[in-house]
Amino acid sequence: MPYLRTWRTSRPPRQTVSPSESHVSRPCISKLVSDRYSDVIVLSEMISYYDISGCYILRPWSYKIWELIQEWFNVQIRKLDVENAYFPLFVSQDRLEKEKDHVEGFAPEVAWVTKSGEDDLAAPIAIRPTSETIMYPAFSDWIRSHRDLPLKLNQWSNVVRWEFKDPTPFLRTREFLWQEGHTAHASFDDANVMVRKALDLYRRVYEELLAIPVVPGYKTEKEKFAGGHSTTTVEAYIPVSGRAIQGATSHHLGQNFGKMFDINYQDEKGETQTAWQTSWGLTTRTIGVMIMVHGDDTGLVLPPRVAPLQCVIVPITSKSCPIEKLAPYCGSILESLQEKDIRVKLDDRLIYNPGWKYAHWEQKGVPIRIEVGPRDLEKRGARLVVRFGGEKVDVGVDGLADAVAAKLDEVQKGMFENAVKFRNDHLVKVTEWKDFVPNLELHNLVLTPWCGGEHQDWEEWVKDKSREESLANAGLEGEADTTATSVAAKTLCIPFDQPDLPEGTKCIASGMPATCWVMWGRSY
Amino acid sequence: MPYLRTWRTSRPPRQTVSPSESHVSRPCISKLVSDRYSDVIVLSEMISYYDISGCYILRPWSYKIWELIQEWFNVQIRKLDVENAYFPLFVSQDRLEKEKDHVEGFAPEVAWVTKSGEDDLAAPIAIRPTSETIMYPAFSDWIRSHRDLPLKLNQWSNVVRWEFKDPTPFLRTREFLWQEGHTAHASFDDANVMVRKALDLYRRVYEELLAIPVVPGYKTEKEKFAGGHSTTTVEAYIPVSGRAIQGATSHHLGQNFGKMFDINYQDEKGETQTAWQTSWGLTTRTIGVMIMVHGDDTGLVLPPRVAPLQCVIVPITSKSCPIEKLAPYCGSILESLQEKDIRVKLDDRLIYNPGWKYAHWEQKGVPIRIEVGPRDLEKRGARLVVRFGGEKVDVGVDGLADAVAAKLDEVQKGMFENAVKFRNDHLVKVTEWKDFVPNLELHNLVLTPWCGGEHQDWEEWVKDKSREESLANAGLEGEADTTATSVAAKTLCIPFDQPDLPEGTKCIASGMPATCWVMWGRSY
Repeated sequence: MPYLRTWRTSRPPRQTVSPSESHVSRPCISKLVSDRYSDVIVLSEMISYYDISGCYILRPWSYKIWELIQEWFNVQIRKLDVENAYFPLFVSQDRLEKEKDHVEGFAPEVAWVTKSGEDDLAAPIAIRPTSETIMYPAFSDWIRSHRDLPLKLNQWSNVVRWEFKDPTPFLRTREFLWQEGHTAHASFDDANVMVRKALDLYRRVYEELLAIPVVPGYKTEKEKFAGGHSTTTVEAYIPVSGRAIQGATSHHLGQNFGKMFDINYQDEKGETQTAWQTSWGLTTRTIGVMIMVHGDDTGLVLPPRVAPLQCVIVPITSKSCPIEKLAPYCGSILESLQEKDIRVKLDDRLIYNPGWKYAHWEQKGVPIRIEVGPRDLEKRGARLVVRFGGEKVDVGVDGLADAVAAKLDEVQKGMFENAVKFRNDHLVKVTEWKDFVPNLELHNLVLTPWCGGEHQDWEEWVKDKSREESLANAGLEGEADTTATSVAAKTLCIPFDQPDLPEGTKCIASGMPATCWVMWGRSY
Repeated sequence: MPYLRTWRTSRPPRQTVSPSESHVSRPCISKLVSDRYSDVIVLSEMISYYDISGCYILRPWSYKIWELIQEWFNVQIRKLDVENAYFPLFVSQDRLEKEKDHVEGFAPEVAWVTKSGEDDLAAPIAIRPTSETIMYPAFSDWIRSHRDLPLKLNQWSNVVRWEFKDPTPFLRTREFLWQEGHTAHASFDDANVMVRKALDLYRRVYEELLAIPVVPGYKTEKEKFAGGHSTTTVEAYIPVSGRAIQGATSHHLGQNFGKMFDINYQDEKGETQTAWQTSWGLTTRTIGVMIMVHGDDTGLVLPPRVAPLQCVIVPITSKSCPIEKLAPYCGSILESLQEKDIRVKLDDRLIYNPGWKYAHWEQKGVPIRIEVGPRDLEKRGARLVVRFGGEKVDVGVDGLADAVAAKLDEVQKGMFENAVKFRNDHLVKVTEWKDFVPNLELHNLVLTPWCGGEHQDWEEWVKDKSREESLANAGLEGEADTTATSVAAKTLCIPFDQPDLPEGTKCIASGMPATCWVMWGRSY
C-alpha cells in the first residue's frame, strides 16, 4: 500500500513561540508532500503525466470538478450581466508589448510561434499568457459612448506561461485552464465595485464549493498585477505543506490599458473620457488546492458540492447472495437518489469484489459510500459510510435519499469548519521581528504591522532576512538553490478585515509607523 | 441600409437541364455572398475581426450559440458513457510524426512554438491540429485489459490549423473551437457502432438544433481522415452560395493508431490484442453554416433552439405613453415567459426608440418580438412578430407564454422544412457525364453512379474536367487561381441512404460498372 506514508503532519496548538523553540526543517517535508501529492493525483485518476514538462492530462475525475465550478460560476456572473465570449489564442508582438509594465511582467514566460509547416512566419506570434492585449483593441472599437458601458465579458480558455520554476500539476503548470473576466466602466468606483464582486465570487468558490477558507485582501505594490492599478486576492492555507497559496486575483486596471488602447467614450456632456477597467481570473489551480487541503492518508477527500460522484452504491455480493438478488433493490435506491439530483453511481461490476470497490472509491474521495448487503435487503435499509471522518450509519430505505442529501450538506459544512480551524490554528499575530521567523516556521501564517504598500524595499528585506534565519535554523547556511529560496517569507495580502492597530504601532521591518496589518507566509 | 444587396438569390424549380441551358457564373455570386456574410456577422455582433489573419473574435451573440450546442451535446454523450477530459495544447514532434499518413495530412498546417521569452526551445513543439497523437500514448498507459474497454473520452478545446486558403469566419479559421471524441474498443464492430452513434448526434445537432438537413454518408478514400480506416460525414447545402459544406465527421480509425501507439490489451483468453479506435469532431463551423442557410436580406434568422434570446419584449413608448405606464405589464409578461424557461429579454432601454429596437433585434435574428403598446395594455394582450416569415399575431396575455412556446416550436419546424425543401430542390440524379456540369451549375448537388471508393484517379478526373467545363461556360478558360479551383466538383459523400442502382448502371466517370451512388458538389 503506497498510502502509509504520512500525508498530514500533526500540528501543535496555536501559540506564539520564541526563537529557541523553532526546529522545523521545511525542505524535507516539502519533498514528502510533493511525492505524496503525485501519488494521490495519479492513483485517484485525476492526472496523467505528459511528455512535455509542465503540461498534464486532466482526466475526467478532475475535469468534472472544473465543469462543476464552471457551471456555478456561469450562473453567478450572469447575475452580474457578464457575458461569455471567445477571443483568439494568438497575439501579435506589437500588441503584447503595448503596455510596458504588463509586457515586462509576462515577457520572460511567453511562448512564441515562429513557423507554420516548414515555413517561417513573417513575424513571430505569441500565445496568450492572459488576454488584456488581445481583448482591449476590440473594446476600443465597441465602446463609443457612455451607453456602451459597462462592458462585461468573460472567457473560459487555456493560457500558456512558459515558467521555469518546478512545475506541479494544477498548482504551477505551463498551460492551464481558467476564466478571465474583463470589464470596462465609466468610473473608478464602478470598476472597483466590479473588482470586489468578482473577488467575492472567488471567495465563494473556495468557501462554498471547495470548503476552503480564504483571506481576501489587497496585494502589496510589489506583488500586484503587471500594468494594473491594484490587485485583490483570496489567499488559502495548505496545512500539509505549511504554505500559503494565492487562490485567485481580481485586478483594478485603472486607466492604464484604456490609455494605451484608446478605450475612450463620450460621456453625457459629450466630452471624451477614458474607460476604467478590471480583469479577474480563476484557474484549475483551485483543484490542486482542494486536493492538498482535504486529502488524507487514503487519498482524496472531495467536498460534496464539487465531487463528480457524491455517492456510490456498492452491493455486497457473495456466493450465497449473487448480484441478481441485490440488483433490483440497489436499482431502486439509485433511482431515489437520482430523483433528488444526487450525483450517484451503482458500482455493479462483477469483476471486482466489494473490498476492492471500497478502496477504489475511497482513494477517489467519493463523499458517501452506500453498502447494500443481504441483511440490508432484509431490513429494508442500507449503510452509509462517510469518507470525511469515517462515520457509518444504518438508514432505512424510505428516508434514504433525504438522509443522504442531509449528510452531504453536513459533510460539506464539516469539511469547511475543519479547514477553518486548521487555518486559524496556523495564523498568529507577531509585532516584533525576533518572533517573526520562529512563528513563520511553526505557525506558517503571520500577521504583522506594516508601514505600507509603497515600501517595496522593506518587503525585499523581510524576504532575504527570513530566508537567512530559516536556513540558519535548519543548518543550511549559504544555500542558494530553489529549495532555499522557497523558505523566504512573502507578503500574501493586506487583509480587508483588519485587526485593531493601536496608535504608535511600528512596522515589523522598518520600525516606521505602521499603517496596516499584512499577512506573510511561505508561498507556492 | 446595407441590407438591400441580394442575399438569397432566387432559384429555379427542380429539373435536370442540358448543357445549353447552363449560364450561372459562380465566382461573381461567391464574392457577393461573402461580402454579405461579413456584413451580417459583424452587424449582428457575432464576430469582430482581429489583426491576425484567420483568427476572429466570437462575441457573446455567437458564443452563446456554441454554449447551447455544447450543453445539448454533453447531455447526449453522457448517455453514451462518454466522459469529458482535457489534454495538453502541445505535442512533441516525435509524437506528431508517429503515424505517417496522419502527419502527412496535417504537417503543412502545423503551427510550431520554437521560443519562450528570448530563448530557443531545445526542440520545437507543435500546437495541436487535432489530438490523436496527444491522447493515444495515454490510452496505451490506461488500457491493459479488456476490462478497461471501451474507453470513451471527449474534449472541448481550441485547435490550430495554419491554412493558407482564404479564411472565412466560422467556416475556415486558423484557430477554431471544437469537441473531439476519442474512443477505444475491443472490436471493429464496437468501434463502428460508436462511429455511427457520434455521427447521428451530429445529424441531430444540424437537424434538430440548427434546422439544417444533412446527408449522412461515407467519405471516399480520397477524402477520408489522414491515418484512419474510414470516415463518415454529414453534408449540408448552402443555398445562397450553391455550395455544399462538410458539417462534421466521425472516423473509424481501425487499428492504425493502436499499432503505432501500442494500445494493446489482454482479452478474456489472456491473449494480447490491439484496440480499435474512433475519433469524431464538431466545430464552430456549425454556426457559420447556420448563418448561411437561414440568413436573409435583413440579417440573421436564428432557429429558436439555439437562439441566445428566443424572444424580446419591446414596449412601444411615446410621449403619451411613457415607460412607467407599460413597465409593470411588460414585467409580468417577462416573468411568465421566464417561468416557461424561454430565453427572453425586456428591452426597456430609454435611449433607443421602438423602431430602432425592431431593426436591431431583427438584424440579430431573434425569433419572436413581442410588441407591447398602450392598446395591448388596454386589451390585455400583446403582438407577436415572427422573424422567420414575418407573421404578426395578436395574443391575449393569459395564454401568452404557451402561445410563444408553441410558436417557437412551429418556427423551428418551419425553418427545417424550408431548408429541406431548398436542399431537395437542388439535388438531382445524373447518369451521363454530359449532364453533369450543367446540373452542377444549376442545381449544385448531383448524385451519380460511381465505380467505387478505390478509384481515386477518376475522382481527380471529375474534378479537373468539371473545372474546365465550368470555366469554359463562364468564359474563363485557362484560369488557375483560387477562384477557378473552387468551381471544381468534389465528392461530398456516399450517402448511407442509397437509391436503387439498376443492374448494369455505369459509373459516370470511368464507364465501369457502378457500385454505389455518390454525391457531388462544389464545396467550402
